[in-house]
Amino acid sequence: MMTKPVGLSRDEIEIFLAQEFPQIFVHGKIWEILDCAPKTATMRMAYHESQLRPGGTISGPAMMTLGDLALYVALLATIGHVPLAVTTSFNVNFLRKPGPRPLIGECRLLKVGRRLAMGEVALRSEGETELVAHITGTYAIP
Amino acid sequence: MMTKPVGLSRDEIEIFLAQEFPQIFVHGKIWEILDCAPKTATMRMAYHESQLRPGGTISGPAMMTLGDLALYVALLATIGHVPLAVTTSFNVNFLRKPGPRPLIGECRLLKVGRRLAMGEVALRSEGETELVAHITGTYAIP
Amino acid sequence: MMTKPVGLSRDEIEIFLAQEFPQIFVHGKIWEILDCAPKTATMRMAYHESQLRPGGTISGPAMMTLGDLALYVALLATIGHVPLAVTTSFNVNFLRKPGPRPLIGECRLLKVGRRLAMGEVALRSEGETELVAHITGTYAIP
Amino acid sequence: MMTKPVGLSRDEIEIFLAQEFPQIFVHGKIWEILDCAPKTATMRMAYHESQLRPGGTISGPAMMTLGDLALYVALLATIGHVPLAVTTSFNVNFLRKPGPRPLIGECRLLKVGRRLAMGEVALRSEGETELVAHITGTYAIP
Repeated sequence: MMTKPVGLSRDEIEIFLAQEFPQIFVHGKIWEILDCAPKTATMRMAYHESQLRPGGTISGPAMMTLGDLALYVALLATIGHVPLAVTTSFNVNFLRKPGPRPLIGECRLLKVGRRLAMGEVALRSEGETELVAHITGTYAIP
Repeated sequence: MMTKPVGLSRDEIEIFLAQEFPQIFVHGKIWEILDCAPKTATMRMAYHESQLRPGGTISGPAMMTLGDLALYVALLATIGHVPLAVTTSFNVNFLRKPGPRPLIGECRLLKVGRRLAMGEVALRSEGETELVAHITGTYAIP
Repeated sequence: MMTKPVGLSRDEIEIFLAQEFPQIFVHGKIWEILDCAPKTATMRMAYHESQLRPGGTISGPAMMTLGDLALYVALLATIGHVPLAVTTSFNVNFLRKPGPRPLIGECRLLKVGRRLAMGEVALRSEGETELVAHITGTYAIP
Repeated sequence: MMTKPVGLSRDEIEIFLAQEFPQIFVHGKIWEILDCAPKTATMRMAYHESQLRPGGTISGPAMMTLGDLALYVALLATIGHVPLAVTTSFNVNFLRKPGPRPLIGECRLLKVGRRLAMGEVALRSEGETELVAHITGTYAIP
């Protein structure tokens, strides 16, 4: 690898996601990149009733989708467009039931190697300090 | 706990899911319980284009949703309707990219205690023997 | 729970571990609590040749033992002596091979509820900034 | 990769471990390979007081060490001597407290690819059918 990889900007990532992953916007544009830079990304997932569970809480899979996306956006912001990067492992601890409100996912990559990237995502309800879930994930880089 | 918990039948679970989780059928009835009994459940997720990723593979979050649902159905088939059972941890290893075909999730509960249940789910493309992903998850039982 | 739980001090934890877990000092006192306070603990594991693997790196199980101990010390520093608290899940991502030097484990508890505690541990070689491993673990509190 | 990798036999693995990992026998030969073949291994860990915790149960790190070793033995039995294969992730769910008796670890590799291997290990007390812990782990193959 002769040249240093160059991460994508927030705008470039928004365009890329809209082109390549239109299906994540099937319920409207509920995902938003609040911020990203090499090794970090902050995402917001608007509240949408398709994600609700009985009791008004947000479903586990909706939270996992936000975590997966935050990891991917942080990776794009670090090493740029890597078409075949794939999640290899994903681990979630659910800590509190989030209320029916937007969720914020803050991702921090802890390693970006040539073959493997690994990061963690803290999920919180918007405006809260306590975590609703903690996620770790690894990506294989081809 | 004086009385032994009684698991729900396949039909009872189908009705329960349709009532309580209508949003998982937002793309039509793509989920189906092929089989369930105490400590086991086999689920089928039909192929739907909203789950695709570039290259024709099924998204990680779609696979995680199938795994989460298979664990929940196996729990319902074992201890019956437990309104406040919640996933506490969830771990996935992605092993191969599944093609654009239905996925089968086979869940086996490895422990069903009074406070905690734990199980694993093997995910395969329909008709295949090799795993596309392996999932473990735990449920807290109130 | 009428009274607020009171965490143990560094000295109280040292005495408790020496009494209750003499076997973790079987190779001499290679573990040391550098610092602890409610929800955090920093541990140091001295280098010992029984932990080596070919190539001079420290074994995975030795790193996991350090992580497990850091979580336990942080829990003792938060809620005090809980005899029957048990680890329920433990997840490690190994990021780099540590050299034959002491390891530092920094634990931060992300949740301490009535029934469940969850935390993460960052492992580094002494004097380094990059992580050699990242650990998450959960404890059931009886 | 032109030639098919050839796994090691039980005897070859025993000799290899004794040469390369003498430190795992620091308490005497408490580890034994009961059986191994491509993609599987069954290990026995004799009871040793250094592994005990208060209440007579076996420590989490001792169980994790057994799981890590069972994965490694199954890998050696499948692809032979791979000096730089390293564990990349390791996940444990502790299900029951084992009594002060030998533990049996049954490992099954679910994927052995060119770059990544993944397997699971079921841990039981000798003579019992119920699991005391379930482990999944991944290995990077250089």
